[in-house]
Amino acid sequence: MDAVTIDFFEERTSRAEVLIEGLPGIGHVGKLVAEHLIHELDARKVAEITSCYFPPQVIIEGDGVARLARNEVYLSEGEHPAAFLVGDYQSTSGEGHYVLAEAYLDVAQQMEVRRIYTLGGYGVGHLVEIPRVLCAVNRAELRGEVEAAGGEFSEDEPAGGIIGASGLLLGLARRRSLDAVCLMGETSGYLVDPKSATSLLRVLSALLGIDVDSTQLQDRASEMEQVIARLAEIHQARQDDELSYIG
Amino acid sequence: MDAVTIDFFEERTSRAEVLIEGLPGIGHVGKLVAEHLIHELDARKVAEITSCYFPPQVIIEGDGVARLARNEVYLSEGEHPAAFLVGDYQSTSGEGHYVLAEAYLDVAQQMEVRRIYTLGGYGVGHLVEIPRVLCAVNRAELRGEVEAAGGEFSEDEPAGGIIGASGLLLGLARRRSLDAVCLMGETSGYLVDPKSATSLLRVLSALLGIDVDSTQLQDRASEMEQVIARLAEIHQARQDDELSYIG
Amino acid sequence: MDAVTIDFFEERTSRAEVLIEGLPGIGHVGKLVAEHLIHELDARKVAEITSCYFPPQVIIEGDGVARLARNEVYLSEGEHPAAFLVGDYQSTSGEGHYVLAEAYLDVAQQMEVRRIYTLGGYGVGHLVEIPRVLCAVNRAELRGEVEAAGGEFSEDEPAGGIIGASGLLLGLARRRSLDAVCLMGETSGYLVDPKSATSLLRVLSALLGIDVDSTQLQDRASEMEQVIARLAEIHQARQDDELSYIG
Amino acid sequence: MDAVTIDFFEERTSRAEVLIEGLPGIGHVGKLVAEHLIHELDARKVAEITSCYFPPQVIIEGDGVARLARNEVYLSEGEHPAAFLVGDYQSTSGEGHYVLAEAYLDVAQQMEVRRIYTLGGYGVGHLVEIPRVLCAVNRAELRGEVEAAGGEFSEDEPAGGIIGASGLLLGLARRRSLDAVCLMGETSGYLVDPKSATSLLRVLSALLGIDVDSTQLQDRASEMEQVIARLAEIHQARQDDELSYIG
Repeated sequence: MDAVTIDFFEERTSRAEVLIEGLPGIGHVGKLVAEHLIHELDARKVAEITSCYFPPQVIIEGDGVARLARNEVYLSEGEHPAAFLVGDYQSTSGEGHYVLAEAYLDVAQQMEVRRIYTLGGYGVGHLVEIPRVLCAVNRAELRGEVEAAGGEFSEDEPAGGIIGASGLLLGLARRRSLDAVCLMGETSGYLVDPKSATSLLRVLSALLGIDVDSTQLQDRASEMEQVIARLAEIHQARQDDELSYIG
Repeated sequence: MDAVTIDFFEERTSRAEVLIEGLPGIGHVGKLVAEHLIHELDARKVAEITSCYFPPQVIIEGDGVARLARNEVYLSEGEHPAAFLVGDYQSTSGEGHYVLAEAYLDVAQQMEVRRIYTLGGYGVGHLVEIPRVLCAVNRAELRGEVEAAGGEFSEDEPAGGIIGASGLLLGLARRRSLDAVCLMGETSGYLVDPKSATSLLRVLSALLGIDVDSTQLQDRASEMEQVIARLAEIHQARQDDELSYIG
Repeated sequence: MDAVTIDFFEERTSRAEVLIEGLPGIGHVGKLVAEHLIHELDARKVAEITSCYFPPQVIIEGDGVARLARNEVYLSEGEHPAAFLVGDYQSTSGEGHYVLAEAYLDVAQQMEVRRIYTLGGYGVGHLVEIPRVLCAVNRAELRGEVEAAGGEFSEDEPAGGIIGASGLLLGLARRRSLDAVCLMGETSGYLVDPKSATSLLRVLSALLGIDVDSTQLQDRASEMEQVIARLAEIHQARQDDELSYIG
Repeated sequence: MDAVTIDFFEERTSRAEVLIEGLPGIGHVGKLVAEHLIHELDARKVAEITSCYFPPQVIIEGDGVARLARNEVYLSEGEHPAAFLVGDYQSTSGEGHYVLAEAYLDVAQQMEVRRIYTLGGYGVGHLVEIPRVLCAVNRAELRGEVEAAGGEFSEDEPAGGIIGASGLLLGLARRRSLDAVCLMGETSGYLVDPKSATSLLRVLSALLGIDVDSTQLQDRASEMEQVIARLAEIHQARQDDELSYIG
């Protein structure tokens, strides 16, 4: 079996100008913004990604149908088509993070994207009145454009590093001569954070040159809170029951 | 060495209509029902499965003969032959769960089964007077038949996911266009639960269209309790003695 | 790089009638007996085994020379040559235990051995006045001979399983139609146990049909206690310093 | 993807007489000395090494540009060119330590080095007035030269073993008939230790036959303390946020 399986739904891979990654992470800021954009831009699902590096479980959907834990690629129509990478989980192992990030880049290159945006949260451990959007790039020349859009660069934050797909995509894309920008919304990190997501969406919209309504971010955050609570419950159950498998 | 080894005992692989998985899990409900059926239907062992993803140990049988930790495939005779997947352990690692589940599906396809039933427990953490049988399917069209047999679907349970072989078999079978149904007996999860197994057996019998005596489930549960206590003891010993290997 | 490297020192692999495994384990009973035999029978080292599944470290010998953590194969001369498998460590991972055990069997088959003896301890957690030697075989027909030599079989002990190389060698050898017997000296498990080793040596000598002096077992146990304390110290250091590598 | 990627910057691999390894470790003594030498000898970077065995993250540099966690190879000019192996992290897994050490040896052999020096700390858990430099070699004949340079050999220290790259390089180099010497500066292990580094530098300089100014070691230690605190912070964050990825 392959460590990662990518299933494209359409015979001919569609092109996109950018790939926007919003996988689960701190405060679920990236996930919230990416899923909001998918909804607002009416993007359609074009691929599913499964992997033995995702947790060994299925998700049960509302109709009682089980499906593998997975990541998904969506594509928006229009003059400037954008691809979105969202999903249930990130890798369960360190090596898997690298293997999956390379697979995501393969998808990006198949879709001929010219730039990758990775979205995440920057956890500060306390409530934030006006969340900043901290940024990183994988080529110095990208910095000016990001600052013009309202993104901030801070020499001391995020304490030197970005963990998981949002970080690795920048590092590994550089090797493929692919531009990548990471946007991190400042957040307490405790809950799904619509305020941080609103700040992040503002900067991303400016970079994409589109206008996106953010009024539904609050509602979407509440829904997501529930879904995430359920996934966390499974994770807890998995750890509790680990002994069940072995005796 | 191969990660998974499947040894068929007979030269020509026998066919079965269904594969019924009952590996160790919560409350050992699935294991109890599957082993009960093997006994009641007088099924014979047709294959053994070993893997480096099982714990690194041997089991000592009553006559002092050691054998590898393993899973086993049994086959019942008759007009509607059924295959059973039972065994000592599930995978010790997340990746291993995927690799093993794919191997189980290879077995299912070699035996040309048309449907997979995975059996498990749904732990609720408290004693249950009348255990429900919660279900999941891997194709929406299967749901009606399962409900007609007494299986229940609950939007909020089992909190969105099924962990281990019982879950992965559904998700991975879908990719192979193979129907699969998961039946989970409600259980406290503390002990081998014959009451939950009786409920589960009733639903499964209806789905299989067979009539199975359940009077010996109680006795079998008591025996299994002892076997499982011994396996758990080894597992504990393994963790305690880990230092012995390295110094 | 290969997961396991076996370096034979002699151009032509020597033959042995039996392979006696005495790797580190509970109470170091097996290690003590195997090293005692190597000394008493004046066996010479014929091969070294290294592996990425051993701890990532070197051992420093008395002269300040560092060498990889390793296992070693010794060979005794005479009418009934015997091979011995001893060493610093067992595998650090579950999968590695399987991979290494298969490699040990490759060595056994290259040397054309007809039987494998695996030696270990059976920890009971309290001091034992007259230590029994509990046994397991990988073919029922071997049992009579082992009992005649003083080995005991107990239906309830060792609680159904044997962990690590001593167990896996039995299970995996059966698949290669190679006879294997495990001898476990009853021990408290707290210290290197010369008393348990004396009992074990008596049974093994009878099985091998040789006469071995056991008077030096006590001294050898004291020396080994010191070596093991040093290896355990490294192991502890490794765990303490793990953070040093990553920040 | 390859487990380890080595990118040489120059078309023709430059030769070096020795390779000096100073990766992160106890008291960061080796890292401090190696980076000091790189600065004092005005060495230029000739290669970068990345691996899925490094933590799954990027480091953000002062200008907001993210780069993969990596190791680096530097080369000093002059009559006796020396290569240096330094970097952010060591392997996150035991197997990875072996794979990476073999890759480092490949680099050494491509550069045709004749000897490897690995630098590290020897943690004693208390402040040390006059830090000794404890040593190990991978061939007994090297010992005299090391002692003449002021290195010490102690039968009981470092308690029999050296963990990580500094140790494995000695063990694995021996198999390639490549000489290697490990120098360990005695240190409390609590902080970046310039005093221990000064002792270590003195012995290493004597062995290399060069004269290196050590006056800036104290300042460099203070700077490094800050960098390391940031990397440790990321590591802590990674562990805290692990749940974010899976729920």
